[in-house]
Formats: sequence, C-alpha cells, structure tokens
Amino acid sequence: MLVCDIKEDATVQDKQKPQPAMVLVQPQMGENIGAAARVMANFSLDDLRLVAPRDGWPNPKAQAMSAGALHETGPARVFPDVAAAIADCTLVFAVSARVRDMEKDVFGPTDGCAALRAHADQGGKVAVLFGAESSGLNNEDVALCDGLITYPVAPSFSSLNLAQAVAVLAYEWGTDRSVALPVKESRAGGLAACKADQIGLFTHLETELDQAGFFFPPEKKPMMMRNIRNALTKARLTEQEVRTFRGIVRALAKGRGGQS
Amino acid sequence: MLVCDIKEDATVQDKQKPQPAMVLVQPQMGENIGAAARVMANFSLDDLRLVAPRDGWPNPKAQAMSAGALHETGPARVFPDVAAAIADCTLVFAVSARVRDMEKDVFGPTDGCAALRAHADQGGKVAVLFGAESSGLNNEDVALCDGLITYPVAPSFSSLNLAQAVAVLAYEWGTDRSVALPVKESRAGGLAACKADQIGLFTHLETELDQAGFFFPPEKKPMMMRNIRNALTKARLTEQEVRTFRGIVRALAKGRGGQS
Repeated sequence: MLVCDIKEDATVQDKQKPQPAMVLVQPQMGENIGAAARVMANFSLDDLRLVAPRDGWPNPKAQAMSAGALHETGPARVFPDVAAAIADCTLVFAVSARVRDMEKDVFGPTDGCAALRAHADQGGKVAVLFGAESSGLNNEDVALCDGLITYPVAPSFSSLNLAQAVAVLAYEWGTDRSVALPVKESRAGGLAACKADQIGLFTHLETELDQAGFFFPPEKKPMMMRNIRNALTKARLTEQEVRTFRGIVRALAKGRGGQS
Repeated sequence: MLVCDIKEDATVQDKQKPQPAMVLVQPQMGENIGAAARVMANFSLDDLRLVAPRDGWPNPKAQAMSAGALHETGPARVFPDVAAAIADCTLVFAVSARVRDMEKDVFGPTDGCAALRAHADQGGKVAVLFGAESSGLNNEDVALCDGLITYPVAPSFSSLNLAQAVAVLAYEWGTDRSVALPVKESRAGGLAACKADQIGLFTHLETELDQAGFFFPPEKKPMMMRNIRNALTKARLTEQEVRTFRGIVRALAKGRGGQS
C-alpha cells in the first residue's frame, strides 16, 4: 500500500532533489500550518503532509498565512493517520522535546538532517513528524519512527511553536553543511583601492593636519600618523571611497588655506 | 558617554552569558513580536529590542503569542530609532535577503553567529537587526551595521516571516557549533567602539561637512552620508580611534567657524 507519489506540480528539478516530508500530526491552528508551508517554501521544500487537521482542509487561515505557498489544490496533502502519512517513507524521525523511554536514536537537528540526507541520497524517502500544538506526539506515533530529533532548547521553556519547529528543520535541511563550512568574507561591492591610492589619501590628510597644527607635541606625529593609517586601512576603502574621503578632507580644510 | 547598559531584570546567570540583542525594526504585527519573543526564550535569549513598533507597546497580541515569554514589564524594550537601539553595541549584523551594493561582510546564519559569538566572548555587545514585515531594512539602517546575514533561501520564495527569521538566528545561537568552527576574528587592538560613539562621529562629521558646503547637490546628501557611514563602519574603529577622528574633524574644520 505504498503511496510513493511524486507531486504533479513539482518541477523536474524538484523531483530529482530529495527532500523530507514534513508531517504535521493533528495540527490545530490553520495559521501554524500556513506558516509551516511558507518557511518550507523558503527553503525549497514542498512535501507537506497533514494528519487529520482539526479544522479540516482546505483552511483559509492556513492559506492566508502561507504567503502563497499553499493553495487549494496543493502542496499539502491530508491523511487520516500517521501510518498512512508515512507509508511511502523509509526513514522517519519524530521531533520531540522529551527524550522518551524508548530505544531510539536521538539526534540534534544538524545530525538528524545529516542522517536523513544520507539516507535520501541513497534513494530512500525520509520524513519528519511534528506533534500537535498542545499535546505533541503520542507514544504510538513515536513508536513508528526510527529516531528522535530534539532541539537544544532551554529546559524551563522548551515548547516551540509548531511552525517554528518546522522552520528549524527546514533551515537545517536547506543549509548544506557537508562542505564543512568554508567560512566567511565574501563582500558585496568592489575591491579595495590600490595601496597607491590609499597612501595618497593618507598623505593628503597628513598635509592638511600639519597645517592645522594637529600633531602636538610634534615628536608624537609619527605615532599619531601610524594610528590613523591603521584605522583607515582597516576599512579596506574602495577607489570611490578614497575619492570621497579626499573630498571630505578638502572640504573641511577649505578656507583655512588648505590644498585644493 | 557609553550607554552599555545591562538589562535590569536579567538574572545573574543571564548577565554572565553573552547573548545577541535581537532588534526588530518597526515591526508591524504583534503576533510576530510575540512569536519572536517565544522562540528567543526557547533558546535562552531575552534581549529583545523594538524600534518604533507600529501598534505601540505593550501589545496584547504580542503577549498572547509569546506563551509567557513577554509580559507588560519585560523583557522587550522599545527605542525610537535604530541608533538608540544599538547604542551600546560593538558588532551589529543586519539580516537581509538581498546582498546590497555595499561594502559589508556577508555571512550565512552559522558563520554570522560564530562571528558574533567570538566577538561577544571577547567582551563586546552584539546585535542582529531584522526589518519590518513588508519593507525590510532601509539602507540607512544597514549602513550602521558591520555585516549582513543572509539565509540560504529559495530565490523565488525568499521572504521569511519575521518571527521565523528570528527563530533561525535564535536556533543558530543556541546551537554551539564552536567545536566544528575554529572561526576567525583575531584582530589586534581593542574592540570596536560602541555604536553610540561611532554615530557620534558620523554626526559630528556631517555637521562640519554641511557647514563646508560639501553636500552638493543637496538632494544627494542622504546617499553621500550613507556612503561615508558605510566606509567608516568598515574600519571597526576603536574608542581611541573614534576620538582621534573627532580630533581630526575638529582640527580640519578649525578656523572656518566649525564646532570646537
């Protein structure tokens, strides 16, 4: 009794890219369903499955909150129970704040997504179960799952909003950590100005500051000037910015006999 | 003239454990503010700052959605503008879907949190800015920030719900990835000056440039000033350097009737 459908309206690319089914078990608030669908779409996920939603389906409040991610015919599908909802799946994790008295592997969101992804990459179909707003998942539903995912929450305030719980998982799935995080420093905008331009600015500024009597006592001038150069060098000024700062120096010095 | 306050109602433990201020700029929906506060509390964060919330403060809808994380006297604080909200901060990132045409470091959530944490561990105060639901952050606010955080979202559906955007950052902050992330931010010298001091320099410079007739044509002034702020923000000026540059501005303007 496999369902194993692939969504009709998915693009060819989506069909080829594995994704986890997000299964909301007896969700109560339409707003949460809509918010879950929206954040799934943010991270390119659209396999949303609803088990016996309290207010039926479709739900106008869900559609309103989804910002276009949900519509009457998709992409959410409704199932009568958890067993039906995960019928086509080969690896299913339950999101749970509590680590239950069950023999299940317990993952954090990152490790959990890595395990799901590894399985999906091998051709399996994976899913994540989320319990209802008030009551969470019952033990029968959890028993069908291959593992638990718990979030690193504050013990005294551990209950996440349903859509927020989906958001964390969707974000984790959308963040490919396999590259091992080649950190930082991609900068928008242009390259830094060449050193000749930077030094031209420093010299210009120094000349004007000399005329203004800024360097006092005079023997401190080399150190003062070095500090200024250090500070401006940190900015990695672009060519345009160097021009701007030369204009600033000119403008401020104007009328005091400064260079033009 | 440092503001650098520590929240009065924070517990002793909270005071000792650094956390980012989450700054919501002109948030519109009380529900989103409440959901943001709730997910922050899930991950042990409570430094929520609101810049001119549309519907005033306190907001009953926010309190209802917060599941107890918000109450009438805390922990959210309201500020008239971004400058006031980040006055005590020394490293501020803006969450932005767009990589703007500005000279800013761009991070993913993981790298961004790592950079924030490294800075906070050195004693700095860090903050993350989130724009309004409909319009996002304007360029003036972004110009005050030291970097951008972008999420790995689908290009065709990139707009996250405000509270979901906060959720991702709160989760990332709550997930200690430091073992896997040997990240950077080793800079000789002191911490950057707090934003109040940085903005004080910008304002001083602007006043003098105004008197000098630098902003021409006048309608270009906002863009010109934004470019200057961006360029100087990149420098991550220390307190001492801010003082030096104020001295520079004073010295250059002297004799032209500038402020002393």
